[in-house]
Amino acid sequence: MTDASQRASLSERVLAGDRRALARLLTSIENDDPLGEQVMERLFPHTGSAHLIGITGPPGGGKSTLVNEMIRAYREMGRSIAVIAIDPSSPLTGGAALGDRIRMQEWHADPGVFIRSMASRRFGGGLARNALAVAHAFDAAGFDPIIIETVGTGQDEVAIASLAMTTLLVQAPGTGDGVQTLKAGALEIGDVLVVTKGDRPEAIELARDLRNLRQLGLAAGSELSRWDTPVIKTSAARREGIDSLMNAIAAHWSWLEETGEMEIRVRTMINTEIAFRVQDALLQGIRRPVTRDGGMQRLVERVAAREITPLLAARELLTRLSHNDTPP
Amino acid sequence: MTDASQRASLSERVLAGDRRALARLLTSIENDDPLGEQVMERLFPHTGSAHLIGITGPPGGGKSTLVNEMIRAYREMGRSIAVIAIDPSSPLTGGAALGDRIRMQEWHADPGVFIRSMASRRFGGGLARNALAVAHAFDAAGFDPIIIETVGTGQDEVAIASLAMTTLLVQAPGTGDGVQTLKAGALEIGDVLVVTKGDRPEAIELARDLRNLRQLGLAAGSELSRWDTPVIKTSAARREGIDSLMNAIAAHWSWLEETGEMEIRVRTMINTEIAFRVQDALLQGIRRPVTRDGGMQRLVERVAAREITPLLAARELLTRLSHNDTPP
Repeated sequence: MTDASQRASLSERVLAGDRRALARLLTSIENDDPLGEQVMERLFPHTGSAHLIGITGPPGGGKSTLVNEMIRAYREMGRSIAVIAIDPSSPLTGGAALGDRIRMQEWHADPGVFIRSMASRRFGGGLARNALAVAHAFDAAGFDPIIIETVGTGQDEVAIASLAMTTLLVQAPGTGDGVQTLKAGALEIGDVLVVTKGDRPEAIELARDLRNLRQLGLAAGSELSRWDTPVIKTSAARREGIDSLMNAIAAHWSWLEETGEMEIRVRTMINTEIAFRVQDALLQGIRRPVTRDGGMQRLVERVAAREITPLLAARELLTRLSHNDTPP
Repeated sequence: MTDASQRASLSERVLAGDRRALARLLTSIENDDPLGEQVMERLFPHTGSAHLIGITGPPGGGKSTLVNEMIRAYREMGRSIAVIAIDPSSPLTGGAALGDRIRMQEWHADPGVFIRSMASRRFGGGLARNALAVAHAFDAAGFDPIIIETVGTGQDEVAIASLAMTTLLVQAPGTGDGVQTLKAGALEIGDVLVVTKGDRPEAIELARDLRNLRQLGLAAGSELSRWDTPVIKTSAARREGIDSLMNAIAAHWSWLEETGEMEIRVRTMINTEIAFRVQDALLQGIRRPVTRDGGMQRLVERVAAREITPLLAARELLTRLSHNDTPP
C-alpha cells in the first residue's frame, strides 16, 4: 500500500468509527509521527462540532469519580464520549493514574466510550498541543462531548482546561482551607463550579461560600450577556447532583451559542493552539541552526550580542509577519 | 521629571547598585509596566556575565535550606547573590512560601543578597518570561550568581530551571520511592545531582543509586566533551558537602566555557525566551482583533473554517518569517 492510500485508508476508518484505527492515529499524534499530521489534515474538515469540556481542580477532589458519573449520564443520553485524562505525574515524582485504569476497565466493552491517558512527564512542554491534537482526532471520529481532565497543580494543566468551551472547576470540602484557597483567577477559569462529596456536612458551607464569591462579579462574558456561573453540589455516594450538573453544562453550551461567545471562545482556542505550535517550532529551531529559519537565528545572535532584548526580538519577528502579509 | 529622564535615572541607579531602584524595576517588570521594558532596553547591554543557576526537585527535598547554605558560601567568597524563588502555590490550592520569608529575614540587612519571590499563580503562563526578565535585571545590577529556585511539580517550573546555565537537581532520601521515581528526563535536566539530608543512612544508598544511574550515559554535551554529572551529598545539619557542591558548580561553569557548550546553551536560552515572548504576543493578539496583526487573524479564521490545521497555520506563519528575511 502506498503512503497516500495508507493515509486515506486510516482516515476513512477513523471517520467510520473504527476504534483500532483511531487508537493508531492517537499514537501517531502522540509520537509526532508525520502520519498523524497527514491523517489529521484529511480529518480536520470533519472537526469543529464536538463540545470540549475541561475539568480541573486540586488533587483528591473526586474528579475521577465525577467523570465516571458524567460518562454514565452521557451514555444514557446515547452520546459517545471521549475522555483525555492528563496523568499528573511530574517528571520528578513519577506516579500512576489508578483511577484511570479502573475507569478504563469499567467502560472497556462500550464502543461509545474512549478514554485516553496522557502522561504529562512524557510530553513536557508539548503536552497542551498534543492534548488538543488528540481532541481533534476524537472530534473527527464522532465523539461528542470530549472531556479533557487535568489536575490543577501546574500552569500547563490549568491552561489546557481553559482551552475547552466549558470548564468545570471541581472542589471538594476539606481539601485545603476551604474557599479562602480558591483564588479569583481560578474562579475565572470555571464556567461551572462543582462541589463534590456533597454528602459531607462541610459541602453545604463550601457551596454557599462559592455562591457568595460568585456574587463579587466573577462571571465570564461581556457586560450585556453575563454568564451566571452556577455552583453544583454532587454526591457520587448518593448519586445526587449529576442531573443538575448535566443541565448546567447544557445551559452553558446554549449560552455560548446564543450570545456569540462561542465564536470568540473558539477563535481564542485556535489562536492559542497556533501559538503553541509556533513556540514548538521556534524552540526546535535552535537544534538545526543553519536551515531555512535564518531570520530567527540572526535575531538570537543579536540578543546574544546584547544589541536587542528578547522582547524586541519577538516584536521584530511579529512585525515581519504582519508586513509580509498579503491582502485577502 | 520627563519620562525619558525618569528611565535614565532609574537605569543609572540600578547600575549603581541602588536596591530601591532595583526593587522598583522588578515590580515594573512583574506588572508588565512599559517602564520596566524601557529600562531593561537601557540595561540589557550590561547583562550577560552572571552565572544563572537553576535549582529544582520535588517538594520537601530541602531546597530552601540548601539555597541558604549556598548564599552563605557565596557571601564568604565576597560575591553578590540574587535568588528568584518561584512560589509553587498553584492557582487552585494557594499556599505560602514560609521558607522564603525566613531566608529573607536572615539576609535582610546584607546588601549583597537579594531574594525575590514570584508566585506562580500570579503570573500564569507568563511566569517563565517574567522570571527571565527579573534575572536580566539582577544581572545588570551586578548580582552573580543568580539562582532560580523552583519546585519540580509543574512543567513550567522544570522548564524555567532548564533555562539556567547550570541546573542542580535536588533529591532527598525517603521522598517518593527512592531512585526509581527519578525519571531519565529529570536526570537529563540536572548538571549536578544533589542528595540533601546526607546525615540520614538512606542518603548513602540514594547517592550510590544516582551514581549508578549516571553511568547509563545520561551526561550532557557532545560525544567528545562529555560532562561527568557529579552526585554531591550534603547535610545542612552537619554543614557538610557545601564546599564540594560549590566546587562542582564552579567546575561545570569552567566546562561550559572551555568546551564551547556555553555558547550553545546561551543561544538555546535566548531562543526559548524569544519563543515565550512570541507566544505571549500571539496569545494576546486575539484580544485586539482588527489591529496590525491581520495576518494572524486571517489564519485563525481559516482554521475556524477548517480549511487548514493549526499546525499548518503555524508553519505558514514561520514560512512567511523566513521568506521575508533580508540577507545579512
